[in-house]
Amino acid sequence: MNIDINCDIGESFGAYSLGEDEMVMPFVTSVNIACGFHASDPSNMYDTVKLAKKYKVAVGAHPSFPDLVGFGRRVMALTPEEIKADVIYQIGALQAFCHAEGIGLQHVKAHGALYNVAEKDLAVATAIAEAIKAVDEKLVMMCMTNSKMVEAAQKVRIRYVEEFFADRAYTKEGNLLSRKLPGAVIHDEDEIAERVLRMVREKCVTSADGTRVDLDAQTICVHGDTKGAVQIVKKIHDKLRENGLQIEAFGKWV
Amino acid sequence: MNIDINCDIGESFGAYSLGEDEMVMPFVTSVNIACGFHASDPSNMYDTVKLAKKYKVAVGAHPSFPDLVGFGRRVMALTPEEIKADVIYQIGALQAFCHAEGIGLQHVKAHGALYNVAEKDLAVATAIAEAIKAVDEKLVMMCMTNSKMVEAAQKVRIRYVEEFFADRAYTKEGNLLSRKLPGAVIHDEDEIAERVLRMVREKCVTSADGTRVDLDAQTICVHGDTKGAVQIVKKIHDKLRENGLQIEAFGKWV
Amino acid sequence: MNIDINCDIGESFGAYSLGEDEMVMPFVTSVNIACGFHASDPSNMYDTVKLAKKYKVAVGAHPSFPDLVGFGRRVMALTPEEIKADVIYQIGALQAFCHAEGIGLQHVKAHGALYNVAEKDLAVATAIAEAIKAVDEKLVMMCMTNSKMVEAAQKVRIRYVEEFFADRAYTKEGNLLSRKLPGAVIHDEDEIAERVLRMVREKCVTSADGTRVDLDAQTICVHGDTKGAVQIVKKIHDKLRENGLQIEAFGKWV
Amino acid sequence: MNIDINCDIGESFGAYSLGEDEMVMPFVTSVNIACGFHASDPSNMYDTVKLAKKYKVAVGAHPSFPDLVGFGRRVMALTPEEIKADVIYQIGALQAFCHAEGIGLQHVKAHGALYNVAEKDLAVATAIAEAIKAVDEKLVMMCMTNSKMVEAAQKVRIRYVEEFFADRAYTKEGNLLSRKLPGAVIHDEDEIAERVLRMVREKCVTSADGTRVDLDAQTICVHGDTKGAVQIVKKIHDKLRENGLQIEAFGKWV
Repeated sequence: MNIDINCDIGESFGAYSLGEDEMVMPFVTSVNIACGFHASDPSNMYDTVKLAKKYKVAVGAHPSFPDLVGFGRRVMALTPEEIKADVIYQIGALQAFCHAEGIGLQHVKAHGALYNVAEKDLAVATAIAEAIKAVDEKLVMMCMTNSKMVEAAQKVRIRYVEEFFADRAYTKEGNLLSRKLPGAVIHDEDEIAERVLRMVREKCVTSADGTRVDLDAQTICVHGDTKGAVQIVKKIHDKLRENGLQIEAFGKWV
Repeated sequence: MNIDINCDIGESFGAYSLGEDEMVMPFVTSVNIACGFHASDPSNMYDTVKLAKKYKVAVGAHPSFPDLVGFGRRVMALTPEEIKADVIYQIGALQAFCHAEGIGLQHVKAHGALYNVAEKDLAVATAIAEAIKAVDEKLVMMCMTNSKMVEAAQKVRIRYVEEFFADRAYTKEGNLLSRKLPGAVIHDEDEIAERVLRMVREKCVTSADGTRVDLDAQTICVHGDTKGAVQIVKKIHDKLRENGLQIEAFGKWV
Repeated sequence: MNIDINCDIGESFGAYSLGEDEMVMPFVTSVNIACGFHASDPSNMYDTVKLAKKYKVAVGAHPSFPDLVGFGRRVMALTPEEIKADVIYQIGALQAFCHAEGIGLQHVKAHGALYNVAEKDLAVATAIAEAIKAVDEKLVMMCMTNSKMVEAAQKVRIRYVEEFFADRAYTKEGNLLSRKLPGAVIHDEDEIAERVLRMVREKCVTSADGTRVDLDAQTICVHGDTKGAVQIVKKIHDKLRENGLQIEAFGKWV
Repeated sequence: MNIDINCDIGESFGAYSLGEDEMVMPFVTSVNIACGFHASDPSNMYDTVKLAKKYKVAVGAHPSFPDLVGFGRRVMALTPEEIKADVIYQIGALQAFCHAEGIGLQHVKAHGALYNVAEKDLAVATAIAEAIKAVDEKLVMMCMTNSKMVEAAQKVRIRYVEEFFADRAYTKEGNLLSRKLPGAVIHDEDEIAERVLRMVREKCVTSADGTRVDLDAQTICVHGDTKGAVQIVKKIHDKLRENGLQIEAFGKWV
């Protein structure tokens, strides 16, 4: 039984440092690297790809709306054509650094507001899927479980994985509980690790209101932006390994 | 006897239109496409690559210093490491649109102030050459004749071509006469076409002060940003063809 | 009986030229100058303020969402706090050029998508009104007729004017007919001039479906981005003057 | 005997946090606030102006070359006209936030590479001085001691102060010792405080090679970007006060 653990990294920018990238690397198998539209810059992308190579984790592009000041967290009303072009651009830029280091690109995961819009808007999700296919049809699209992203990947006929958010509460419909609501983010390490283990083994999660929700995710999304966050990732990693699961980048087994 | 004609295109940006790209396409064999740092944006890059494909001209990346408001014409004191990363980023972004359209990338030509600095600064020229090699070692570097760019390409061991500026006066040292000096830009169509023909056949040009300067260029740089400019390109194109020269993208014969 | 004619100008950017600014100046009394977020740059803003001074037209700031590549036409989900800060910033920047030229700033008009959102969203309209008041409580807010912008200006207690779009069809509710619908833009010079004259005299317009809509605008919004557009402005200007109306910047009489 | 202590603050950007702004506030009397070209954004500028108001420190604008990714530390070959326009823009933007909070703007200090160029290039220094005068002729220009900036301020006839860098070694010509050389930055708290005290009382500093250099500075430049840096500022502050000096913003006494 295989499972991948993914994390956003490479989110520093110029003189600004963000995240504890190197600390989280031993515990993840795939990383989503910012491409300059919401964070990062060419020099930082190059360094981040080198870091990923050093730790032998699989690399993915993390394209965003073009909104550096808003860190890509603000929805922008772009057309699907604009989104497709923006995503192709960002994947290509990152892919070049991968070529430079002699490693491959495994996947693409939309960032922030673009991810959130793509969950529910098939036209946007399709634009992303088409962009991925246009650059390299072997790339894997990382999707929210049971979302329009999955539908888009199937329609466009590209490989995809679904991801489970380790520290987020779910609604009974299988969506993430809004961050504005209490309990949206789970902080207890043990609880998080237990939820992840159950999701991997039983393909389900208990929603915030106590309902069993079926989910089938191949990758666990974790955060590494603080020391506390890194500790949680380590916990998840160790828990999965102790229970005999094979933690490995999905590119090798999906 | 082969010769290539190259032109900068794809320099529009968002709502802003610049250049008469489509008008110049029938008369050139290689195009240098802006990559978003001095001009263009992802949507415009995509459209420009489609245009190049339609006219079957060879595509090159036209990377620049990151200076949109200055159109890449203002020197910036970047380190060679920063330049290398910026150039890799831009080549990769354009290459992705080429992949999307199923065409290859032929070459890379530095833009504006970056080109000017690279002419004289070996460290900068080397950074560009290394960036090119890092992305794809088969790419050709477009160089100013007899410049540090040529030296860098040789040192880094990548293919290169030298280019001749059709409408610019040269000094006796083989440099471009500064635009601030009278006679720096030649406007007479017939004179321009004659100079180009002589350069191709006799591998030389007469400098502003009447000296013969030896040059061996495989590509002629022309401008297509106004209707008058397009007329000059057509003149050059016709003159070369009438004289039995084979006008063809250098990727096929260098 | 007084009326103002306003036009967007100063929308060039770096090497990119947009609009026939100087041609439209003789026929307008107020101009809305881009502030660098959707168009323009500091050098161009300076030149544009000098142009406005030369023609003795009243100057207004034209703040936008921060989206240069989208020319401020794409809605962005900014918080009211972010919008307030962005608008203060842009007004201040333009005001400094007015100080430099010894002229005053008359008004503020939101641009593009920001204008469109503010028409219907009171929180956004209020953020803009508060920004205006924060910088200078004597500034006038330019508003869509009968919109949330008017409500915001009243609530925040700043001066405002309502504007009439000379070449746009209206719905029976007094909104602009979507550009996606046929007949949304009126092209006939005489028809446009007649509509404007009627609006000024009778405070009404006939909607696309033939209904009389009451409107009371103190300024007419015109476009000067093409030669044809300038011709329409001249027509409106002449028509109003022939009919004895006083065409004058609203800062003097509102 | 009066002395001012100045510090760069407001250098965060979007999601990125930089500097220990609030910690340094009790010990400084003037602050230089980033204006969005090398750091900061409108929301952060607004918050920073509020912070300055809360601590009753005098506010200055900290304009830069337009280079966010390089944090304004990379020289750019802008014309004096471009620099003047860029500086007017940035001062105006910050001034608007000061108006919004009902406080005045005291001074302007060029940032990073722009400061370094202005030290030696009279045309650039003059462009900055003219920009300052254009926005508000009562603003004070903060200058490197004995530099072209002082000459420019005198020529343009605006008020100015000269500043002393608390933790930097000087050459015998009175310039800062290059950061590339050993001993360029002084780390010992006591040594720094002693140097500052001597500079204030005796109007001189001992250069790296042991020569006495005459300097007459009205403000001490300190750094507050780390906890260690804040400790040094406190030390300087306390040392000056213990020795009976009046630590006060220069706007009140220059």
